[in-house]
Amino acid sequence: MFEFRLEATAGAARAGELRLPRGTIQTPAFMPVGTHGTVRGLHPDEVDRTGAQIILGNTYHLHLRPGEEVIRQMGGLHRFTTWSKPILTDSGGFQVFSLEGLRTIEEEGVEFASHIDGSLRTITPESAIEIQCALGADIAMAFDHVVPGQASFALAEEGMERTLRWLERCRNRHHDLSDDKQTLWPILQGGTFPDLRLRSLEGTLAQNTWTGVAIGGLSVGEAKETMHGVLDQIVPQIPATLPRYLMGVGFPDDLIEGIARGVDLFDCVAATRNGRHGSAWTHSGKVNVRNATNRTSDAPLDPKCDCETCTRFSLAYLRHLFVVEEMLGLRLVSIHNVRFLVRLGELARNAILDGTFDRWREDWLRHYHHRGEV
Amino acid sequence: MFEFRLEATAGAARAGELRLPRGTIQTPAFMPVGTHGTVRGLHPDEVDRTGAQIILGNTYHLHLRPGEEVIRQMGGLHRFTTWSKPILTDSGGFQVFSLEGLRTIEEEGVEFASHIDGSLRTITPESAIEIQCALGADIAMAFDHVVPGQASFALAEEGMERTLRWLERCRNRHHDLSDDKQTLWPILQGGTFPDLRLRSLEGTLAQNTWTGVAIGGLSVGEAKETMHGVLDQIVPQIPATLPRYLMGVGFPDDLIEGIARGVDLFDCVAATRNGRHGSAWTHSGKVNVRNATNRTSDAPLDPKCDCETCTRFSLAYLRHLFVVEEMLGLRLVSIHNVRFLVRLGELARNAILDGTFDRWREDWLRHYHHRGEV
Repeated sequence: MFEFRLEATAGAARAGELRLPRGTIQTPAFMPVGTHGTVRGLHPDEVDRTGAQIILGNTYHLHLRPGEEVIRQMGGLHRFTTWSKPILTDSGGFQVFSLEGLRTIEEEGVEFASHIDGSLRTITPESAIEIQCALGADIAMAFDHVVPGQASFALAEEGMERTLRWLERCRNRHHDLSDDKQTLWPILQGGTFPDLRLRSLEGTLAQNTWTGVAIGGLSVGEAKETMHGVLDQIVPQIPATLPRYLMGVGFPDDLIEGIARGVDLFDCVAATRNGRHGSAWTHSGKVNVRNATNRTSDAPLDPKCDCETCTRFSLAYLRHLFVVEEMLGLRLVSIHNVRFLVRLGELARNAILDGTFDRWREDWLRHYHHRGEV
Repeated sequence: MFEFRLEATAGAARAGELRLPRGTIQTPAFMPVGTHGTVRGLHPDEVDRTGAQIILGNTYHLHLRPGEEVIRQMGGLHRFTTWSKPILTDSGGFQVFSLEGLRTIEEEGVEFASHIDGSLRTITPESAIEIQCALGADIAMAFDHVVPGQASFALAEEGMERTLRWLERCRNRHHDLSDDKQTLWPILQGGTFPDLRLRSLEGTLAQNTWTGVAIGGLSVGEAKETMHGVLDQIVPQIPATLPRYLMGVGFPDDLIEGIARGVDLFDCVAATRNGRHGSAWTHSGKVNVRNATNRTSDAPLDPKCDCETCTRFSLAYLRHLFVVEEMLGLRLVSIHNVRFLVRLGELARNAILDGTFDRWREDWLRHYHHRGEV
């Protein structure tokens, strides 16, 4: 269990297979985000039909509502939500880090004010693991200290070193609590500084034989080129046997650039968040569904897409649903966006497997950026 | 086409079959309301899976947005929305009547201020038909003058007589415009006064050989007993060969009481509106999904229900979705409520066919009212 099998490479890009208790994931793969135990606006069957092989649950949100004890009592997150494929839970580190001004980071853990009712709460490395054990995902994440993309060397070093110390506490607690149906992945930190990132990797690998490794603290305000530079430096140093998960990334071009640099897994809320605002990714750039030009358009949102929305509904109908504020519109565009990213993983994988990745990547990006936002 | 075949009766209650261009409807039947070209919150496939045989579209709303010309250009309401079974469109009469203080009823038609932007619009008997011909539903409704449930005899008489005059104009316009895939149904008015209702029926039947008849202006503020009394007086006078549609009704017990009095078709927004507020009908009364007692309930919303929601999700999960305000919750409870009313029609039909209707009705109502709202 938790084995990763590398099937093919194309430069740094990889095609692989990750075996998890509830299913095998073909990589590279995009993981839709199910913040509150549901991918926002979608039914689990709809998520399944996008081809998603694994979804992400948010420890911070589920801890606050309904609380991990409710979910444990209901048989765990899979049973509670009726999603039977693999789930990865984040640790809450990124969410509490995002509560700028409302949280205090200390060595013991992070105290923060709940965004629901302002009540003071604490998450420690140990409690982050306890919550995730109650949730019962296939993959749990270590509790990390995230710093902003513009963080100084000193702050990035502090966050990185604390993340390493917290990792040891997470691992100990996970060792005590978890059964063999959940694995724990560490998170690399170190801001935008390659030296710190390398030290983070070395310190992480020294602690344990992991089944996967995540790269955190990117796409948090730094330039895209900076993110690419960090990936160029750090990913080749991660043992090839480990699946690599780039947290909180991304947009379609981020996925392709990440895959090209050896990343295997991605997650991002943009697919559903943009979907709720009527903003869709298509093979020829972004489309705003509300545009008046779509008023009587009989065309699908993206003629090259095979999703449930594009193969059935017209742009005119989607636009109408957004204009009259019918929930179905948010849902249909979210389905499209999730399918778009899931399929990008599938297309990249196929291109890696048949040796055409570089050309595919170049063609895809050129076509995508050709039109820009309409 | 548009034939109604009576299959069985149980007292005044009837089981029948109505043949429409896009499908045959087994009655009695509940029609979910698709105000803006979608049953609110639901995908057409979800509506289909509730067993709904026909849905209703709102002429007033679709006239304002996206406008009937857009829908005509997109191939009609069926093609625009991808709902391929029968559709009935109301005439807009009830909606403009509801814009109290914002509309002027004159003999020519009704001038009203749009609820979207306040712009002044007019609907006449002729334009109500023109809009409905553009929408292309299987059944169009005549434009009627609705009065409140507490209306005086004089006002109810005025509305009833105007409705008869408008009916003639509707019929003439429909005769000129429509193809053989759409029929026009008249609407009986006359408030709560049996004499006026009978005059409405006589005047209506004198004008044409109709394929169905609707009873309007009930469930608009009068007492339930009053509504039942009107039905008791008027329905037996409608030729048995015509399907009878009680507009804007109703709640579960209203359906059963209506069926017992010879009504064949119903529509009501309560199923989806209540669903969006987390209020569900069940076989043992109303349930508020948000109740704290549901926090860790592994039970379905209604153990006797066969809907997609009840056969899959726990009350605990539904409650959680409402607490965190996830759209999926509104959808799942709406699916349940729609299925609940559709199934009520199926159960009543079966009971009429096998001669057990009276006992079934009594048992059902006693059980339903036993617990009351929790």
